[in-house]
Amino acid sequence: MTEVLSTNPRTGTAVHTGQRNTSPTEVDAIVRLARTAAVDLERGGRAWRAELLEAMAAGLETSRADIVSIADEETALGEARLNGELTRTCYQLRLFAEVLADGAYLEATIDHAGDTPMGPRPDLRRMLLPLGPVAVFGASNFPLAFSVPGGDTASALAAGCPVIAKVHESHPRTSELCANTLRAAAASVGALEGTISVVYGRSAGIHLVSHPDITAVGFTGSVATGRALLAALNTRPDSIPFYGELSGVNPLVVTEHAAEQRPAEIAAGLAGSYLLGGGQFCTKPGIAFLPATPAGDQLVEDLRGSVTPAEAPVLLNENIRSSFVDGSARLRNMPGTRVLAEGLAPEGTGFAVQPMLLGVEIGQLTDELTEECFGPLLVVARYRDTAELTSALARLAPSLTATIHTGIPEPGLPAEVLDALRDTAGRLIFNGFPTGVAVTWAQHHGGRWPSSNSLHTSVGPTAIRRFLRPFAWQDAPRWALPNELRDEEQDIVRRVDGTLHLPGSTMKENPGDQ
Amino acid sequence: MTEVLSTNPRTGTAVHTGQRNTSPTEVDAIVRLARTAAVDLERGGRAWRAELLEAMAAGLETSRADIVSIADEETALGEARLNGELTRTCYQLRLFAEVLADGAYLEATIDHAGDTPMGPRPDLRRMLLPLGPVAVFGASNFPLAFSVPGGDTASALAAGCPVIAKVHESHPRTSELCANTLRAAAASVGALEGTISVVYGRSAGIHLVSHPDITAVGFTGSVATGRALLAALNTRPDSIPFYGELSGVNPLVVTEHAAEQRPAEIAAGLAGSYLLGGGQFCTKPGIAFLPATPAGDQLVEDLRGSVTPAEAPVLLNENIRSSFVDGSARLRNMPGTRVLAEGLAPEGTGFAVQPMLLGVEIGQLTDELTEECFGPLLVVARYRDTAELTSALARLAPSLTATIHTGIPEPGLPAEVLDALRDTAGRLIFNGFPTGVAVTWAQHHGGRWPSSNSLHTSVGPTAIRRFLRPFAWQDAPRWALPNELRDEEQDIVRRVDGTLHLPGSTMKENPGDQ
Repeated sequence: MTEVLSTNPRTGTAVHTGQRNTSPTEVDAIVRLARTAAVDLERGGRAWRAELLEAMAAGLETSRADIVSIADEETALGEARLNGELTRTCYQLRLFAEVLADGAYLEATIDHAGDTPMGPRPDLRRMLLPLGPVAVFGASNFPLAFSVPGGDTASALAAGCPVIAKVHESHPRTSELCANTLRAAAASVGALEGTISVVYGRSAGIHLVSHPDITAVGFTGSVATGRALLAALNTRPDSIPFYGELSGVNPLVVTEHAAEQRPAEIAAGLAGSYLLGGGQFCTKPGIAFLPATPAGDQLVEDLRGSVTPAEAPVLLNENIRSSFVDGSARLRNMPGTRVLAEGLAPEGTGFAVQPMLLGVEIGQLTDELTEECFGPLLVVARYRDTAELTSALARLAPSLTATIHTGIPEPGLPAEVLDALRDTAGRLIFNGFPTGVAVTWAQHHGGRWPSSNSLHTSVGPTAIRRFLRPFAWQDAPRWALPNELRDEEQDIVRRVDGTLHLPGSTMKENPGDQ
Repeated sequence: MTEVLSTNPRTGTAVHTGQRNTSPTEVDAIVRLARTAAVDLERGGRAWRAELLEAMAAGLETSRADIVSIADEETALGEARLNGELTRTCYQLRLFAEVLADGAYLEATIDHAGDTPMGPRPDLRRMLLPLGPVAVFGASNFPLAFSVPGGDTASALAAGCPVIAKVHESHPRTSELCANTLRAAAASVGALEGTISVVYGRSAGIHLVSHPDITAVGFTGSVATGRALLAALNTRPDSIPFYGELSGVNPLVVTEHAAEQRPAEIAAGLAGSYLLGGGQFCTKPGIAFLPATPAGDQLVEDLRGSVTPAEAPVLLNENIRSSFVDGSARLRNMPGTRVLAEGLAPEGTGFAVQPMLLGVEIGQLTDELTEECFGPLLVVARYRDTAELTSALARLAPSLTATIHTGIPEPGLPAEVLDALRDTAGRLIFNGFPTGVAVTWAQHHGGRWPSSNSLHTSVGPTAIRRFLRPFAWQDAPRWALPNELRDEEQDIVRRVDGTLHLPGSTMKENPGDQ
């Protein structure tokens, strides 16, 4: 029964939270409640689940001052950023309420009985159903938007799946307050107790993902922890989806023309992006490929100028701090690597670290130099020609994002550079920076392993697809069909006998009521 | 270099095929060709890939007589069934050509730059891209429709993914002929050599799924082989999707009223369904729950009458034959089990077996009795009340299908029975039988493990989603966007600024050409 502590990253001081790690028996009881809540969440229907999400957003807004203040004590991310993160979290909950109203996510499909080239076919109707209770592992670096009330939780609840969130040790008090707020909101619309729950401690997390009634796992964090969870999942007798959003170096390429036209602008934007939030973003640009030209030299100079005065940011926890200190020390001492600039050295106690800009000989890029180094560190490599650039890009592990800065207009961007960037990422950014992930329909926050498992996003409306399974009814009488698959339903987009129909279009033909 | 043999199930005689197992070096070379073909398949575009699929269907039709004749020699499934299966395979290829023309599968989404409650947002455009080379493991029981030219291959090629199929040892000559036919069709429309390939032998299959350039695996077969492939996949440094369609007992429930109204019809249909193709269907009803009423007695009598004269079917291979013989012997000797009827005993050589109808005391259902027994065997359990029925249903592992026979009208079907059936299956059939899987938009052929990994179907248009990954372009100039994401494109359904637009609707606004 280890007690749960909360540590202030600015001081390194830990305080008691009054919580203790959740025991296996307690996890079992929580999952039992979630099973019951699963039936209720689905039966309640889309409109009611939208109300639930709205109530949760409203509850978080009401507790804003407390949440931001406690989150700042636990993460040192600053009140401005945390206020913005809370706004984003509420916006996301409300966006999923809109997704529910829209209903297209159900992929509702009706094929009436009839003759086909393959002979007569029965009446078949398909839509997506909630999977069941879902385990969510929140991130250290987003105590709100990717944690207990974050995107995985919002999309799973929208789908109709109860959530059991494993609290991140970096922000247990924030998580508890958020969980209480969400639970109160759930109760206020009549949702059952098991709709949203939290567990504490690593072994509770492992027990959770091994539980037979857990139907999917959402995870945001390191490759190492992701692999540990996968290993636990692999011991299950069944196989359930694992949505890990793990890491990436997020390469950024600047063309010769871009460097000539906008060296200062690109340098300032790049420094701002990799230093933002202490470099603790999954979309932090970790490696930049700049042309080995005089304009590229100028860009490096401008970058150095942006980094040298940078203050020592306070990282989220001791583990992240020591990983950064050790990792950055290893990188700076590798053959072919030199320090181009350093920010201010940390003073006093706590988890502050020194920002760093490293230059690397492009021919001497190693696996370690092209992996994510979580924190305020950017590796700069200079390319002399397209072949050198594409061969360096080809050795990168997949990332969430890739960025290209082009000349405007850009006469000389070879197709193979764009292709290489596209192959390595889930989002390709032109003339911008990868930090900042808009919560919107067209967003994609995912990519090939280790950024994720390729197929899904963890940001934006389509994240809901992760927690749904298709189901087909064959020759079902009307009373046995969900409303969305009855012929007279006209409120959502559906594919009927092969043709898409938008809401409001007419279609009258029911299977016989029986 | 083991030689590949082809065995005639009717005689047990093996002949040389001239093929040998594919070596690791050969697998590597095949994957290299597939990588090149992947670029080509995507660049060719949807209309050209539709032509490719049409050419493949036409090629198979042209070779129909040879394919059916060789497949019958290797599988003993009979020419009528194999002709039907080839028709289905061609239909499926052509249906995916329609899916490509339709284009909705791309989930094309455009969010123009603008202000949001979260501040200004960039221009974001999202659609699905092909994953890359895919490994496909065909089934023993569908030498055409779930094998080299089957549904996984059709959906992967439609997505733009080259296919490397591992040939099933039950039908190597059929597979080779099909592969040659598909390759010739591919060449006829100018597709590259690596578009479709085959490998032989178990170790080639393991090497294939471990290859770093394989991006997804489609598999239809047993849980044991599926687990072996998963174990090989788990040794990869990355994690890629595994689409296993493994097994299921496909429960069927008859209500008291249904038994009273239609005993002979249900008995004949059920016997026909479980004996079809020697019981070698993934949707074979393996367990039937009948009411412990006089009408239920009559239904059992009718079933016995349907089974007793059934001829000994020839199973696909020695492994399936001996598994059935051993498995059915174990089941019939379990406590609480008795033989209700047996078909004719096999005569002569080859892989023929005796059809079997077992009665089981519902309270003595064990895990083994509720698992799939591949072949012509049906377990019948009698329930006295809803509690007995639902508790028996609750212990079943998930299946592809569940079936309910109701009275028409049905006054007494408890909701918990329907709920239990829905929870355990991917398709719920009313007053019909699970064998026969229509290839149509609303079909779902999947379910929770071990039927599949919950999220996807292996039959019907939405099977294409398994081989696609989302990708987002941020602030991309028009020239860098795929056609489907340019503003002026009006041929496919798209979501623009949150609203769905059907093909033909107007939307004019392009990001600046640069």
